[in-house]
Amino acid sequence: MKEIGIALLGMGNVGLGTYRILADHARDIERRLGARVRVRHILVREEGRARPEDVPAEIVTRSIDTLLADPEVAVVVEVMGGLSPAREYLERAIASGRHVVTANKALLTAHGEALFSQALARGVDLHFEAAVCGGIPIIRTLREALASDRVSSIHGIVNGTTNFILSAMADEGAAYGDALAQAQKLGFAEADPTLDVSGMDAAQKLCLLASLAFATRVSPQDVHVEGITSLLPVDISLGREAGYVLKLLAIAQRSSEGLDVRVHPAFIPSASPLADVRGAFNAVLLQSAALGASLFSGLGAGSLPTGSAVVADIIDICRNLLAGVSGRLPMLCPPYLQEAPRVPTVQRRGPFYLRFSVSDEPGVLGRIATVLGEKGVSLASVLQRPARPEDPHATIVVFTHTTREQDIQAAVQWIDALKSTRAPTQVIRIEEGPGVLRAGG
Amino acid sequence: MKEIGIALLGMGNVGLGTYRILADHARDIERRLGARVRVRHILVREEGRARPEDVPAEIVTRSIDTLLADPEVAVVVEVMGGLSPAREYLERAIASGRHVVTANKALLTAHGEALFSQALARGVDLHFEAAVCGGIPIIRTLREALASDRVSSIHGIVNGTTNFILSAMADEGAAYGDALAQAQKLGFAEADPTLDVSGMDAAQKLCLLASLAFATRVSPQDVHVEGITSLLPVDISLGREAGYVLKLLAIAQRSSEGLDVRVHPAFIPSASPLADVRGAFNAVLLQSAALGASLFSGLGAGSLPTGSAVVADIIDICRNLLAGVSGRLPMLCPPYLQEAPRVPTVQRRGPFYLRFSVSDEPGVLGRIATVLGEKGVSLASVLQRPARPEDPHATIVVFTHTTREQDIQAAVQWIDALKSTRAPTQVIRIEEGPGVLRAGG
Repeated sequence: MKEIGIALLGMGNVGLGTYRILADHARDIERRLGARVRVRHILVREEGRARPEDVPAEIVTRSIDTLLADPEVAVVVEVMGGLSPAREYLERAIASGRHVVTANKALLTAHGEALFSQALARGVDLHFEAAVCGGIPIIRTLREALASDRVSSIHGIVNGTTNFILSAMADEGAAYGDALAQAQKLGFAEADPTLDVSGMDAAQKLCLLASLAFATRVSPQDVHVEGITSLLPVDISLGREAGYVLKLLAIAQRSSEGLDVRVHPAFIPSASPLADVRGAFNAVLLQSAALGASLFSGLGAGSLPTGSAVVADIIDICRNLLAGVSGRLPMLCPPYLQEAPRVPTVQRRGPFYLRFSVSDEPGVLGRIATVLGEKGVSLASVLQRPARPEDPHATIVVFTHTTREQDIQAAVQWIDALKSTRAPTQVIRIEEGPGVLRAGG
Repeated sequence: MKEIGIALLGMGNVGLGTYRILADHARDIERRLGARVRVRHILVREEGRARPEDVPAEIVTRSIDTLLADPEVAVVVEVMGGLSPAREYLERAIASGRHVVTANKALLTAHGEALFSQALARGVDLHFEAAVCGGIPIIRTLREALASDRVSSIHGIVNGTTNFILSAMADEGAAYGDALAQAQKLGFAEADPTLDVSGMDAAQKLCLLASLAFATRVSPQDVHVEGITSLLPVDISLGREAGYVLKLLAIAQRSSEGLDVRVHPAFIPSASPLADVRGAFNAVLLQSAALGASLFSGLGAGSLPTGSAVVADIIDICRNLLAGVSGRLPMLCPPYLQEAPRVPTVQRRGPFYLRFSVSDEPGVLGRIATVLGEKGVSLASVLQRPARPEDPHATIVVFTHTTREQDIQAAVQWIDALKSTRAPTQVIRIEEGPGVLRAGG
C-alpha cells in the first residue's frame, strides 16, 4: 500500500489530537484513501516536555532542518501556534514544495495573505479548516458547498470561552468574574483570557470566514469589536424577560452599500437556533441567495475536534497527492480576494437595548425619553425599576424600534452627561436577523 | 477564459433552479473557478411544456443523442427524476466518459451501486449532494470533513413534508388529514404524498447517508420504516406535557453488535436541537468519535436550495477538470462499501410512549400494568384520563424506562387482545440520544 509521509510541527493539545486520530482511525483512513498516512516526525520545542507514551521517541525531533531534509515528508502540519517561528517554518515548508496544513488563526489573520500567495506561486495546497471552529467544517463548506451561492450574512457563535461564560451567567445569575473563574477552573478559559473575552479571538475567526465568504480581504482592523467584560447578570435577566438571549456574535453582513463586519454581545430571540447553542459549542448561521438559511454547529475547540479538522485537511491533501493535483481550491489572496466597499458599524440600523442607571427622583424618565425622542430614537417598550438595597440607583430599561446606531450614540452621550445619570448607559444591540431558520435569502 | 460545457437532463423545478443559479451567479462562479460554466443543452421530454423566457430556445433539445454527440459537453447533470430513462441516460453519459451529477435519490437507492461501479471503472466522477437534503451539504461533509472521524450515529429530520405536517399538528392541534391538506395547498406535499408520509423518502435518503457514513451497503429493505399516518394530535400533546416533541426521525446507529437503520416517528426532548427544526427545514445530527456532536441544518428541498447543491457539485467537478483529475472521492460501491453486521430494530433498547384506549371500567389499569410487569417493562410514569364526550374510551398513557423493543411488542400484543382494550395501542419510541449537543462520541 502506498504511504504518504507527514510531519507535525508541535505536540500540544491539537498536535496530540491529530496524532491520536491518525493512529486510532488508521484503518478507516486507509480504506477511504487507499493509502497509508505515516507521521514521520513530530517537532517539539521544549526539551523538558514529557513525551506521551503513545508517541515513539524516534519520531520526535527538535530540528526543523532534519524534518525538512526528509524527502519522504509530503505534508507539513503546523499545530504549534504563535506567530514565530510558525511563520518561518511554514514558509520554509512551502518553499520546499511541501503541502501545508495549519490550525493557526492568529498567524493566518496576521500573515495569511503572504502565506497563501506563496503557496499559490509554489503550487502547493494550504488548508486551514482547524483555524476556525474546530468541530464545524465551515471553511470547507464556504470553499466548496457555498461556491455555488451568494452569501449575504454570517452570524456566528465562534468563541467557546465567552459562550460558556454567558451561559453560566444566564443559568446561574453569576457575575462575570465568577463565571470566568468557573470557566478557568473547568479548563474552558485560559489563565489570561484577554484574547477571548475581548472578542479578539472571535474577530480573527470572523476575518477568515468573511474573507472566504465575500472574496475580499477582511483584517482585524476592519472589524468593530466589543467584548463581554462589561455585561451584568441584570442585563441577561432583563433581556430574557423580553424574550431574548445574550450571545457574543461574530457578524458579517453584505448590503448594497458594502460589507459590515463586527463582533459584539447581542440579544437574539430565544427562538433563534443560535440561542440554543450552549457552553463550549460553536455555531455558524449563513444566509445565502439560493440556500436561504443554513446552520452548522459543533464543538469549537478541544484536542480531538480540532485534531479531527486537521486530519480531514491532511486526507484532502493526500487525495490530491494520490491524484497528482494541487491548487483545486481558491487561496485567500488575489486574484480570489478583491477590493469591496465597507460600511462602518455606526451606520447599522437595528433595535437596541438601553439600560440607564439613574437617581431615584421625579422627572428622570421624562428627561431621558425627551433626549431619545429628540435624537430620533423610537421606543418599543420601557421598564422602570426603583432603587433596591443591592443597587442604590434606579434602573430604566428601553427597548427601541429600529434605529440608526449613530442616533443611539448621540442620545447616550447626551444622557450620560445628565446630572441624574449615575453610571454609563449599557447599550446592547438586538439582532433579529438570526431569529429563526427562514426560507429565502 | 476557459469554458466548460455542461448539459442538463430535465427542466423541472431542480433543473430550472440549477440553470438560474448558473446564470445569476455566473460572475462569482467564474471568479472562484477561473473558468466559465456554459449550459450547452437542456434535455426536455414533453413537447408541450412551456419554455421559461430566460431559457434560450437553441439550447433546448429532445434528443439525448444530440447532446451526447457534442464533444464540448464535459459534465452531464441528471435532474429529471424517475428511474427510467434517467438510468439509461446516466449510463450512456458515463460510458462516453462524461462526469455526472445527479439529484436522484430514488435512482441511487435502486441502482446506485451499478452506477458508481461503472463510474469508478470508467474513471469519471459521480456527485450526488442534491440527492439528500438539498440545502445541507451533508454528503460533502460525510465524504470529506468526516473522513478523519468515526461516526457512531446519525439522527436526521430529512423529509420536509412530514416535518411540516407534524409541525402543523403540534402548533394547531390539527388532525393528520387536515395538516396534510394544508401542506398540499401550500405546495409542501405532493398530490400523492405516499412516498413522504410512509417514511420511504426518508428511508431512501438514510440509505445514502448510512452507506457513506458507515462504508457499508444499506438498502431500503435493510431499513425498518414506519410513517406518520397513524399519529394523532393527542399523542403530540401528551408527549409535549412530558417535555417531548414528535418528529419523523431517520436513524442509523452503530454499536459493537452492528448497524441499526430505521425511520419512524419518535419523541425527542424539547431541548434537543432537532426539536427546533420546523416546517420545511431538514437537519442532520451526527455523533462521531473525535468531533462529538455536530449539527447541520437547512432547507431540505426546493428549486434553489436543491439547485444550489447541484451547482456546488458541478463546480467541484469543474475544479477536477481544470486540475486534470477525477476519482478523488470514494464511490458508493466496493471496495469502499464492505459488509458489516446488522442489528434488527427489534433488538433496540430504549424508552417508549404507550397510549392505550380502554373501556372506562374498574381494574383496567391494573390488568395493563400487570401484563407490562410480566413482560419486564418498567414504568417511568403513568397517566389515566377518563372517557370524554369526544372520545368514548378511557386513555392510559405510559412512559417506560429503557426496555427491549421485543418486550414492548410482546406486552402490547397481549394487551391489544384484552377484552377491555378498545383500539390498537399506540407505540412511539422515545429517543433521548439527540437530546442536547454533547461533547464526546
